[in-house]
Amino acid sequence: MPFTPPVAEQRFVLEHVAGIADLAASERFAEATPDTIDAILEGVGQFAAGEWEPLARKGDTDGPKLTADGVRMPQGFAQAYRDYVDGGWGTVGSPVEYGGMGLPFALSTAVLETLGVANMGFALAPTLTVGAIEALAHHGTQQQQALYLPHLATGAWTGTMNLTEPQAGSDVGALRTMATPRGDGTWSVKGTKIFISFGDHDMADNIVHLVLARTPDAPAGTRGISLFLVPKYRLDAEGRPGAPNDVRVVSIEHKMGLHASPTCVLSFGDNGDCVGELIGPEHGGMRAMFTMMNNARLNVGLQGVQVAEAATQRAVAYARERVQSARASAPGAGPVAIVEHPDVRRMLVRMKAETQAIRALVYYAAGQVDRGNLGDDAARKRADLLTPLAKSHGTDIGCAVASLGVQVHGGMGYIEETGAAQHFRDARITPIYEGTNGIQAADLVGRKLGLDGGGVLAALIADMRAEAEHAALRDLIDAIEAAAAHLAGADPDDRLAGSSPFLTMCAVAVCGWLMERQGRAASGTDDFARIKRASARFYLDQLVPEALGLKPAAMASADVLYAVNAEAFAA
Amino acid sequence: MPFTPPVAEQRFVLEHVAGIADLAASERFAEATPDTIDAILEGVGQFAAGEWEPLARKGDTDGPKLTADGVRMPQGFAQAYRDYVDGGWGTVGSPVEYGGMGLPFALSTAVLETLGVANMGFALAPTLTVGAIEALAHHGTQQQQALYLPHLATGAWTGTMNLTEPQAGSDVGALRTMATPRGDGTWSVKGTKIFISFGDHDMADNIVHLVLARTPDAPAGTRGISLFLVPKYRLDAEGRPGAPNDVRVVSIEHKMGLHASPTCVLSFGDNGDCVGELIGPEHGGMRAMFTMMNNARLNVGLQGVQVAEAATQRAVAYARERVQSARASAPGAGPVAIVEHPDVRRMLVRMKAETQAIRALVYYAAGQVDRGNLGDDAARKRADLLTPLAKSHGTDIGCAVASLGVQVHGGMGYIEETGAAQHFRDARITPIYEGTNGIQAADLVGRKLGLDGGGVLAALIADMRAEAEHAALRDLIDAIEAAAAHLAGADPDDRLAGSSPFLTMCAVAVCGWLMERQGRAASGTDDFARIKRASARFYLDQLVPEALGLKPAAMASADVLYAVNAEAFAA
Repeated sequence: MPFTPPVAEQRFVLEHVAGIADLAASERFAEATPDTIDAILEGVGQFAAGEWEPLARKGDTDGPKLTADGVRMPQGFAQAYRDYVDGGWGTVGSPVEYGGMGLPFALSTAVLETLGVANMGFALAPTLTVGAIEALAHHGTQQQQALYLPHLATGAWTGTMNLTEPQAGSDVGALRTMATPRGDGTWSVKGTKIFISFGDHDMADNIVHLVLARTPDAPAGTRGISLFLVPKYRLDAEGRPGAPNDVRVVSIEHKMGLHASPTCVLSFGDNGDCVGELIGPEHGGMRAMFTMMNNARLNVGLQGVQVAEAATQRAVAYARERVQSARASAPGAGPVAIVEHPDVRRMLVRMKAETQAIRALVYYAAGQVDRGNLGDDAARKRADLLTPLAKSHGTDIGCAVASLGVQVHGGMGYIEETGAAQHFRDARITPIYEGTNGIQAADLVGRKLGLDGGGVLAALIADMRAEAEHAALRDLIDAIEAAAAHLAGADPDDRLAGSSPFLTMCAVAVCGWLMERQGRAASGTDDFARIKRASARFYLDQLVPEALGLKPAAMASADVLYAVNAEAFAA
Repeated sequence: MPFTPPVAEQRFVLEHVAGIADLAASERFAEATPDTIDAILEGVGQFAAGEWEPLARKGDTDGPKLTADGVRMPQGFAQAYRDYVDGGWGTVGSPVEYGGMGLPFALSTAVLETLGVANMGFALAPTLTVGAIEALAHHGTQQQQALYLPHLATGAWTGTMNLTEPQAGSDVGALRTMATPRGDGTWSVKGTKIFISFGDHDMADNIVHLVLARTPDAPAGTRGISLFLVPKYRLDAEGRPGAPNDVRVVSIEHKMGLHASPTCVLSFGDNGDCVGELIGPEHGGMRAMFTMMNNARLNVGLQGVQVAEAATQRAVAYARERVQSARASAPGAGPVAIVEHPDVRRMLVRMKAETQAIRALVYYAAGQVDRGNLGDDAARKRADLLTPLAKSHGTDIGCAVASLGVQVHGGMGYIEETGAAQHFRDARITPIYEGTNGIQAADLVGRKLGLDGGGVLAALIADMRAEAEHAALRDLIDAIEAAAAHLAGADPDDRLAGSSPFLTMCAVAVCGWLMERQGRAASGTDDFARIKRASARFYLDQLVPEALGLKPAAMASADVLYAVNAEAFAA
């Protein structure tokens, strides 16, 4: 694929949306100078294009294999991963204390985007490692941090998140994995976890499993859950990977896509000898999990950006090359590349506009995380509010753009060798994992709407309203304000019934706001500026009104959903 | 999969939407009595559930294979196909003169729906055979009809449509396959065709390839195209399959889905000995092709119904079985099946409502085809207008519903063994083949809007307006009238730029009209009536407003699409 790292776009969004110059004005992020940003964006772009993208199709067709020695990645992945570690690309956002560069999360978001545009399944490994770093940095002991963080900070060791069990998916509180004290301060972990991304592989010296489990006599449900660190290899006295722990890969799932990422069933403690350490306080697992998951959710929203960017680049390249029919407005001029046909153009401009919009949403949220880390409490809460928007809408749009990418290719899009189908298959997991998009919507109308008594949303609305000029965007902002007021007073069923359409309306409003801002900022006459202005105009004129059409659904009663009971539902 | 043939729904839609009782009042369709309809719907339901559905997953995982003797279907398919032929299921809509039952197209649509719900890829074989029957019945000589139609009418022989070549996809006029006279009235065909569904297989005694080709000195473009019949086996003096013709399967494509259907590259005349017959007049190929394609386009819209119905049934079954979390409105009542959670319910009701809506659209169009065949010219033109709506919107919704089906399954939806992913992959070709949905939209705003100077659309709008009560539906009808008036006066680029959103608006208006009608007709207190009313209400309250949100896009200028030229587009 003709992969072009979207450096100019990333730089522009970091500047005008994430506000990286303001971040660099702080002591903590003083290293985030324009030169450093350019060097990192361009460097990782070259690396990803040169080493990760060439493995993208192999990851799909060959896939990881489960052997007697554990999971083996397809040929080339281990080397490409080592080069990622050696190049320092894992360290961009990692804590300085443990060997990281400590640069803003917004910038490491751009780095991770580029890696994922090149090879989405592969980039899931660093994504999960970030979650492990967050959990340890916030909840680990000094000793745990000293032992594990230096290796995670570079990516030399990778992390996993072990939440799901067959009976405990969205309902994390139903998990049954047990941890019992071994008497020496460590714990014996026993249970089976499913859907563990990169649960095993041969690319790193160790794998740090973060495992949710119950302790003896723990209260039922989520309040009785604790977080444990279970290394694939136990550390020896020097802190190096030593004897294998009692963790077994039972199987790799046969997934529709994202084949480069081995999705494992892991069995802990088959032989009663799986040693783990408690992270944070006993029964404090949910809090630690949310620390781990919050950034992970933004990063899954970022996967939507990754796949949308990749699908768009591929579709644009095909549409510029494929010649078919004369343009209707110039029938005598002979056949043209299909990019010239209005309906194909419409699909491509939509792909561009949607991709830019979700990139803006995710980078903006990442910038709020950075501000929160600098002590700005309002920004931290705004990041909390934006996280379900970025995760859900980012992934919904990733899927939608990948689908348009198939469509632009016509019949060739359905042939696997073309590559468009892989994006379509790869994308489809993202609205599901790290909390389904329905769970995100429930989080939005359940927890996030009520933050500061509604003040967090109100402040966002006020900021948007102060800047918004486009009539449809102003209408949409009014609509989400009205819907939010309605939902705040609605009973739980009605609130949840309207939650998903409401989430989409909110996300499109934020996207529209940020697209309009970018359109204003792109005042030049170069191609980049003209495309940016066209994308912004298309988004505001055509996509914002679509979201307005969701208002009745966001405010509808749940009654219609329960007109028949479940038993009759199949009639 | 727990497949339940949707007999009650089909009967209801045939009655209240397709108006089958009116059809049965004609001499031609007098056999379409309620008893016959019931017997056929129930019979094919039992047959499909018993023999075709059990092969659905095998068709996906094993797939047809190309051998030295041609394409071999997975084990069981040949027998299941013979049983379909022997059961007479292919004859329902076939002409009486050739051994068919000659029942309404609306009824054979229901039969084909059931077969495709059970096994979508398999059901493509009969779908293509219908196209071949139509072409021969309208354009073949008496001798050609006598030789071929009795075998096609039962499905004992199958048909193919050979249009596409590597350089000629949507631009059919660019094809290069040549037919030269052999001097005995037959033609020698030479060329390569791609994307030929069921281009070869081992289920039938013969395969009737209908091939578009150019004749010597033919004018350029579509005006120089002729249609040829090329049998896999030439007929002997008794009209039986004899010597193999010079047609070779070059390869089977590796597609994302619909694996049960072998998509072949066919080479005609490698040895200069491929014998074909002209169908219709020389240079009359496009007209014959449209005859063949019009019903095929409705049948592809019907594939959207098939996959939506299958995905919905599978999702409902899973959601009723999968227990996870307490309902938010009753936290103390313990975990419930996920069908009880409002957002899951919303997805399921949406799947139901969308599926019912596109079924209504396709069956209504089929009923208009029947009326056209009875001599009602207005109905024939209305069917022409509805065909791009049914094809595009039916397939868009098939994809959307299959995607919701994956979502309802959560993580299990991404695992291939669950089956939800197969629907998602299978569906994705339908917006592409038989004329991409973009081509359908161009057909709508190009040819169909202008039928009778706009009178055909005006008559439909008048009929909808006379019956529509729901405010949003009335607004949508007004909106399509306004958009149609705008598009009629727009320049070609603007008209095409708005064509796809306009098509969706029109299709949703027709669906909303037919759903409202069904909601009124379903006055009982049984589960079927209550679900029908709930689906109708959901459709009108929540989905019709979404389509209203497309109005700005339908009426937008193409300028924004051409703000940069194609060379700059990748910037």
